[in-house]
Amino acid sequence: MKILERRDTDAVCHLHLNAPERLNALSDEMLAALQEQIDALHDDTSVRVVVISGAGKAFCAGHDLKQMTAGRQAEDGGKAYFKDLFDRCARVMTGVQRLPQPVIAQVHGIATAAGCQLVASCDMAIAAEGTRFGVNGVNIGLFCSTPMVALSRNIPRKQAFEMLVTGQFIDAHRAEALGLVNKVVPADDLAVSTQDMAQLVASKLGAAVKIGKHAFYEQVQMGLDDAYAYTGQVMVENMLYRDTEEGIAAFLEKRPPDWSQ
Amino acid sequence: MKILERRDTDAVCHLHLNAPERLNALSDEMLAALQEQIDALHDDTSVRVVVISGAGKAFCAGHDLKQMTAGRQAEDGGKAYFKDLFDRCARVMTGVQRLPQPVIAQVHGIATAAGCQLVASCDMAIAAEGTRFGVNGVNIGLFCSTPMVALSRNIPRKQAFEMLVTGQFIDAHRAEALGLVNKVVPADDLAVSTQDMAQLVASKLGAAVKIGKHAFYEQVQMGLDDAYAYTGQVMVENMLYRDTEEGIAAFLEKRPPDWSQ
Amino acid sequence: MKILERRDTDAVCHLHLNAPERLNALSDEMLAALQEQIDALHDDTSVRVVVISGAGKAFCAGHDLKQMTAGRQAEDGGKAYFKDLFDRCARVMTGVQRLPQPVIAQVHGIATAAGCQLVASCDMAIAAEGTRFGVNGVNIGLFCSTPMVALSRNIPRKQAFEMLVTGQFIDAHRAEALGLVNKVVPADDLAVSTQDMAQLVASKLGAAVKIGKHAFYEQVQMGLDDAYAYTGQVMVENMLYRDTEEGIAAFLEKRPPDWSQ
Repeated sequence: MKILERRDTDAVCHLHLNAPERLNALSDEMLAALQEQIDALHDDTSVRVVVISGAGKAFCAGHDLKQMTAGRQAEDGGKAYFKDLFDRCARVMTGVQRLPQPVIAQVHGIATAAGCQLVASCDMAIAAEGTRFGVNGVNIGLFCSTPMVALSRNIPRKQAFEMLVTGQFIDAHRAEALGLVNKVVPADDLAVSTQDMAQLVASKLGAAVKIGKHAFYEQVQMGLDDAYAYTGQVMVENMLYRDTEEGIAAFLEKRPPDWSQ
Repeated sequence: MKILERRDTDAVCHLHLNAPERLNALSDEMLAALQEQIDALHDDTSVRVVVISGAGKAFCAGHDLKQMTAGRQAEDGGKAYFKDLFDRCARVMTGVQRLPQPVIAQVHGIATAAGCQLVASCDMAIAAEGTRFGVNGVNIGLFCSTPMVALSRNIPRKQAFEMLVTGQFIDAHRAEALGLVNKVVPADDLAVSTQDMAQLVASKLGAAVKIGKHAFYEQVQMGLDDAYAYTGQVMVENMLYRDTEEGIAAFLEKRPPDWSQ
Repeated sequence: MKILERRDTDAVCHLHLNAPERLNALSDEMLAALQEQIDALHDDTSVRVVVISGAGKAFCAGHDLKQMTAGRQAEDGGKAYFKDLFDRCARVMTGVQRLPQPVIAQVHGIATAAGCQLVASCDMAIAAEGTRFGVNGVNIGLFCSTPMVALSRNIPRKQAFEMLVTGQFIDAHRAEALGLVNKVVPADDLAVSTQDMAQLVASKLGAAVKIGKHAFYEQVQMGLDDAYAYTGQVMVENMLYRDTEEGIAAFLEKRPPDWSQ
């Protein structure tokens, strides 16, 4: 049984965190498996949407504390290992954002620390009723400094700060109200609801979604004028796609588009 | 009948998009008419607030797809025309933000693609019950890359992303909860509610509103220290206005201010 | 009776604005007293959390307009005084954010103009039912340009703009929904609820909270890659604390941590 199961159905790639006995912790092995899939997906034009889910009681409980503790045995007390670990983790998190395909987190149980960061790093998230979210490293003396990079780009400042310094959980509905998840559904509907959203996104023109996702995260970091100069060029490029010409023609002629991809 | 009607009442300028048969699309003509008014309003001290509304069933349905399709006939397949079009559109959108007067979108029916961008580009927005908002270009293979510049500066990241890749509409109440509109009112009250807000803003000291609006969008793009250094200077300048001296004196003496403007 | 009372209990420092007859205005004296405490707290390792509250009917009603008016008597019409005043005020506001300890605003009555800015500048805020918030300087011809620096980093753009140009108040529940406060409680529970939150934060490892708070505001101003490069280093440093090693070990051994600080 693999630590990360991949199953592709109808242009949707499901990545299933599969270390339930460790609450799907982001161990060295799990991070490597995720990075491998991210690299593979980057040029995989058969996949239009990615879904990340978890096996067992939790979506993901963050870093693997036993492994980190073992890392302290090195001569430098673990310093080099920790630096490398957080580098690899950030590479996975930013890699999710930089995938050409939209990535949906299918969240249940708990999503804590780097597990909450993974949810925040996905483009969208659907949560089961009863899911709890936290950046609770502060409870064990390890402030969730890397998770907050993603979290504070999803939810308002004071609410992110409160989660970080109190270590308290928020429930799925609060997470939705704050902006951390897009939708909350009954636990029994989680897989189907996520699949529905994935299929909906997969039905769009892949080239347009790809150029748009990339532009989304680029422009959000720019000043207003730079953002418009940049996205204006993106629009021109998008307009010149043959399939976009067909999409607009089909719309004007009130018929479904006949797209090549 | 003009494509953009202007009516000024009591220091409030109403710009009324008037191409209902095309759902007030932002055609070359509409963009030119808007730019003309923006240029005229820039130095028009008789106007203190601008309201943008639309005739017919929709506030604005975005770009004029027929005109864009016609543009493809050029030798370069429309490339130069599209580049110019998105430049002109961005100039209108940023022009709204750079007007010295606050601009209120009075929204009804639908506001889609660049029409949703126009709402997001206004300083404030009031929507009628039943209004639907969308950045649904993805449905025809044209990702709303320029609209998302304005949208992603109004609403949280995951919710903006969802609208962009699913092409789905949100209703007025959802738009309010996310931050895209300030208030939702019954359709019958839309004009009066907007006028009330416009009059309220128009009753303030124009010079203070002008310097404040400009500073709002400047500081929001700065780091914290730069933002304070800059707005501190704005406050000093504002304090030295004769009318501000009168406004503060009147407040301390518990009487209405006697402003020169 | 001091204009700013300080009372320390169990690692929580209470700063109590105590000029109720002036609605705790941020006069020269009040700003100086706040700055003095901020400077003192910076290296005070006995304090883990700071609470700011106000005596009388209001939390804080902003600048002292009588004092500002008196400043106009100078030869330059007050220009130098105003510049210095806004510099000192910004130093207090950014000083709150730069304190190593989390700062909680305990808000009741009204918080207006620079008083609302003080709430927005705190890391967290708890408000009593019935509290009203406003950046209403526009009503007297003085746009709240410095308060908006803090406000616009707490709540969405259109909602901040509306408060600034209409001068209207929002109530505590609206402030919570927008992100300006973390929690609303009955007036009778305000002190206890704030103390509970303060004690909860004070119970965490101080060194982790300190490094985390600093990193929070640094990373939020960075691009994504810079933010991860920076916070990755912060995580490594945090991991190497002896107390963090103990915290993680205690968690793995299911016992309470035995922290040195």
